[in-house]
Amino acid sequence: MPCTISISAPSYSITPFFTFTSSKSTQISHISHTPPKSLTTQTRKTTSSHHFQRLITKATVSIEKETPESERPDTFLRGVDNDGATASSVRARFEKMIREAQDKVCNAIEQADGGGKFKEDVWSRPGGGGGISRVLQDGAVWEKAGVNVSVVYGQMPPDAYRAAKGAAAASSDQKPGPIPFFAAGISSVLHPKNPFAPTLHFNYRYFETDAPKDAPGAPRQWWFGGGTDLTPAYIFEEDVKHFHSVQKQACDKFDPTFYPRFKKWCDDYFYIKHRDERRGLGGIFFDDLNDYDQEMLLSFATECANSVIPAYIPIIEKRKDLPFTDHQKAWQQLRRGRYVEFNLVYDRGTTFGLKTGGRIESILVSLPLTARWEYDHKPEVGSEEWKLLDACINPKEWL
Amino acid sequence: MPCTISISAPSYSITPFFTFTSSKSTQISHISHTPPKSLTTQTRKTTSSHHFQRLITKATVSIEKETPESERPDTFLRGVDNDGATASSVRARFEKMIREAQDKVCNAIEQADGGGKFKEDVWSRPGGGGGISRVLQDGAVWEKAGVNVSVVYGQMPPDAYRAAKGAAAASSDQKPGPIPFFAAGISSVLHPKNPFAPTLHFNYRYFETDAPKDAPGAPRQWWFGGGTDLTPAYIFEEDVKHFHSVQKQACDKFDPTFYPRFKKWCDDYFYIKHRDERRGLGGIFFDDLNDYDQEMLLSFATECANSVIPAYIPIIEKRKDLPFTDHQKAWQQLRRGRYVEFNLVYDRGTTFGLKTGGRIESILVSLPLTARWEYDHKPEVGSEEWKLLDACINPKEWL
Repeated sequence: MPCTISISAPSYSITPFFTFTSSKSTQISHISHTPPKSLTTQTRKTTSSHHFQRLITKATVSIEKETPESERPDTFLRGVDNDGATASSVRARFEKMIREAQDKVCNAIEQADGGGKFKEDVWSRPGGGGGISRVLQDGAVWEKAGVNVSVVYGQMPPDAYRAAKGAAAASSDQKPGPIPFFAAGISSVLHPKNPFAPTLHFNYRYFETDAPKDAPGAPRQWWFGGGTDLTPAYIFEEDVKHFHSVQKQACDKFDPTFYPRFKKWCDDYFYIKHRDERRGLGGIFFDDLNDYDQEMLLSFATECANSVIPAYIPIIEKRKDLPFTDHQKAWQQLRRGRYVEFNLVYDRGTTFGLKTGGRIESILVSLPLTARWEYDHKPEVGSEEWKLLDACINPKEWL
Repeated sequence: MPCTISISAPSYSITPFFTFTSSKSTQISHISHTPPKSLTTQTRKTTSSHHFQRLITKATVSIEKETPESERPDTFLRGVDNDGATASSVRARFEKMIREAQDKVCNAIEQADGGGKFKEDVWSRPGGGGGISRVLQDGAVWEKAGVNVSVVYGQMPPDAYRAAKGAAAASSDQKPGPIPFFAAGISSVLHPKNPFAPTLHFNYRYFETDAPKDAPGAPRQWWFGGGTDLTPAYIFEEDVKHFHSVQKQACDKFDPTFYPRFKKWCDDYFYIKHRDERRGLGGIFFDDLNDYDQEMLLSFATECANSVIPAYIPIIEKRKDLPFTDHQKAWQQLRRGRYVEFNLVYDRGTTFGLKTGGRIESILVSLPLTARWEYDHKPEVGSEEWKLLDACINPKEWL
């Protein structure tokens, strides 16, 4: 039975449907983060998608309720999306990519952990779509590691689509039906135990609308979004440089403007306004990206997802067994508290997921196993804790 | 320098200005919690205050930035509010009441703790108002206990007030200035260490508008709000009955409808929608209360504040030294996680405070020292943990 969810939230993107990511931006990002002023690369195209998104996010969205599954299906795509003619579609290839990335990351985490094993939950939705949540809890290295994929088929209100088609179409006498959309994404948050081993978050997602049934020639809309970011409790400069350099390498293969642009976007997005601090030391973040060639962006998202292991695992190997004090553990727990504050108060994916009745356990697996709040805690000026806080308040160029 | 804060949040009440309370409801409460259908007591009067509130909450509010003080002043009232002629005003007597309640509760907590001492922070605002935050952290009995009072003088936009005065006044050519308001409140969250000793929250507040300078005869508006609620990790039925019976006694001294009405309001307010659970086992909660005699409501709020110690301390004395297992401690920590979820996601006072740049450390002292999130944790059916969860899902009548 489809479950229609009415939302009155002012401005959320559709993309947050994908499980628990903590990096789902919305139109708000575009307003506050200042999109690049000039992008004249050949691949850029102009669409009304941003305006379109602003409209759909103000309206009612419907999504079906999920049901648990005992087996992983080969695909969460609907049959019509998965026959011979459409197996090469972007949606099919994106799903394949995120499923493979989930397997690779989980294998790498289990191997590095050397003890913990992922628990898997699979679910589907009657009309197509579903997801796989994998969580490793209380392992040898990670206190909580979640790697989720999901595919969503939903409906958006017709007014949004009519507006997107322009004034002429909007004034047509014909009243269009709701617009089906497709969304797929991978989301992961990895919280290690050792306070010198950083938390990692990544999320990559793809969004597409169908043409409405009564206007088959109407254009499809699509976007990519995502990012990878690092949240240490202590700064090892070589680790942060390594992490950012892998992100930059992935970006530079596609466009020299990507790294500086998405690095800044990341610093702007993971901002805890009431603290005037970033959650961590950043990485890359982008959203609602459609002003480049679609194939190029699919390759870029794939490259980013494949960069997670080389960006992160070498850092873990170096730090996972370092000795630490109770004081250092308590500081890590305080930073975990900040992680909780960001995710519950600001993260668009989390807040949207909570409001729309998504799969709660998948949404909140992003929260750490343990966190701490001390009243008016201030690290000693010049201390290692102070240095981390300073870098969260004043984002640095690491490369 | 006055600091003007523009908010675009859809519907917040003014009342959440008072530091860190986790019980500040708004107009939303009135819509979702269904006000009583018939209240025909003699003290009831009709005003346009609910409509008025709905309007002011949609608009811009200004409040000054606080500055730290080394000494506690005798009063946070402005001089004009504190001369001989006005010392008997409701605002003056309410401030006196909450200051005394803060002293009494802090003394009782220190005595029961037998080790920890409150740390005090005092602040003021240039144009009047200020607050006192007291926090006892990592004591013998409590891991974190915060008891805050605050007094706020602010400005609300004129359109809200014009609307409140009715259509005739609103159509006047004279453009009124901003409307000054006064607010004062006490807020407290007490998190014990022992998993059998419950968390307590209480908050009582008073709100008043001035007549605008250019319309001195215009009526003042005023409201009371507040409540006291209990959040255990394990149910001792005698404890919950004792707690609720003290709340009922306080209510019954004023109106026999108060306890059933405010008990339900409490169950409705402390609702974690995405979990379909209440935060705890309730108590009493009310907001925007002005449809009774003002003196009667001042006495009622005073009675409620004075009931905190007899409602709570006897429970603590019985439970603070009970032996417990790691499993029981972990369950308490999971419930602390729910406390964090409620306060950061739903509590109007917290979310409003975070958005408007209130004193962050006072706002977030309501969060526990430590909290925990396990993926897909489900207590065994019939266990003590399951019984608590069941009572949070299905609120019970305890008396």
